[in-house]
Amino acid sequence: MEKNALLAERNRGFFRAKKLLVLNVVSSPGSGKTTFIRETAARLGARWRVGVIVGDLATDNDAARLRTAGIPVVQITTGTVCHLDADMVAKAAGQLDLDKLDVLIIENVGNLVCPADYDLGEDLRVVLLSTTEGEDKPLKYPPMFHSAHVAVVTKSDLAIPAGFDRQQALANLRRISHHAEVFELSAKTGNGMQPWLDFLVRERAARG
Amino acid sequence: MEKNALLAERNRGFFRAKKLLVLNVVSSPGSGKTTFIRETAARLGARWRVGVIVGDLATDNDAARLRTAGIPVVQITTGTVCHLDADMVAKAAGQLDLDKLDVLIIENVGNLVCPADYDLGEDLRVVLLSTTEGEDKPLKYPPMFHSAHVAVVTKSDLAIPAGFDRQQALANLRRISHHAEVFELSAKTGNGMQPWLDFLVRERAARG
Repeated sequence: MEKNALLAERNRGFFRAKKLLVLNVVSSPGSGKTTFIRETAARLGARWRVGVIVGDLATDNDAARLRTAGIPVVQITTGTVCHLDADMVAKAAGQLDLDKLDVLIIENVGNLVCPADYDLGEDLRVVLLSTTEGEDKPLKYPPMFHSAHVAVVTKSDLAIPAGFDRQQALANLRRISHHAEVFELSAKTGNGMQPWLDFLVRERAARG
Repeated sequence: MEKNALLAERNRGFFRAKKLLVLNVVSSPGSGKTTFIRETAARLGARWRVGVIVGDLATDNDAARLRTAGIPVVQITTGTVCHLDADMVAKAAGQLDLDKLDVLIIENVGNLVCPADYDLGEDLRVVLLSTTEGEDKPLKYPPMFHSAHVAVVTKSDLAIPAGFDRQQALANLRRISHHAEVFELSAKTGNGMQPWLDFLVRERAARG
């Protein structure tokens, strides 16, 4: 763990030198990470070039989905390991032409527990909470939600059929992720994407 | 891990002596474990008495939800641990009057990775896959889906708005959970619950 913290700081320094904005996207399985990243990359594409590192226990399905959208992507398959670590990310980043990128998005393994303890050297940890998962998840997985800089409520198009209690969800996020920026959107319909993209543009611009 | 395997076998023997049918219910966060268990217990209630042990990192929300339905329940809060283990289950079971129960349902921590490696002494491992998570989850979390005796597709009421590819999901389950019984249902609407309940009644009856 301590070794991971050191390697994460090395990553952080390396990414800063490259003027990359680096996001570590974490969530439950099936919260819509890949669709969210694909739509973010596509919509930022006119202004900033986005690369992706994606982690899964098995398959390269997510990498394939991103690659067909023209996004440079490296897949890490972790086997039975429930999170990415800084060393895996360093090795994967070495397979991308970082000088051609402005933003690097790391899609972590779908898991609301293990990735909380592993700094990857990111600038921003982004936790997704989909409307179909229920509004209590921040309370039930506090280390992850507490450690996030940004919380994104995804699948807002399914909020009504899923019976999502939006006010309760936002209250729970305020309680656990009290320092986090909060966005609500549907990557599928595009609703609510713009404030999130504006935020990223500001964050990236602040890095020169 | 080896110690867990021994304690799990001890649990298994103890539960058999008590003629309990024991389920270990695993899934992603927000797949609907608690609603599924509550509806299962309520509908079995006329015939079999059901008790529940529920695991979460934090909060006793799930226990409270089950208790208001009149179900005997013990909550385990694991702190930062991403799964239940056999020792936690043995201690929690000691707080239930097992002689008054026919079925014991263990709701594991919401996680598709860590609980795969921890036998709790259950008779049946039941993995849930909600329609809102997407049909690729068995491929992406093979150890968990491979180890399950039963796979339940939940939230079938949301299949259409979520764009769930049912045929692909069933094909993926056949590929990874090839020995598992598969059920499709909505605990919220009650649709599809009956075949699952009939299955449990048969399994419980086989235990004398």
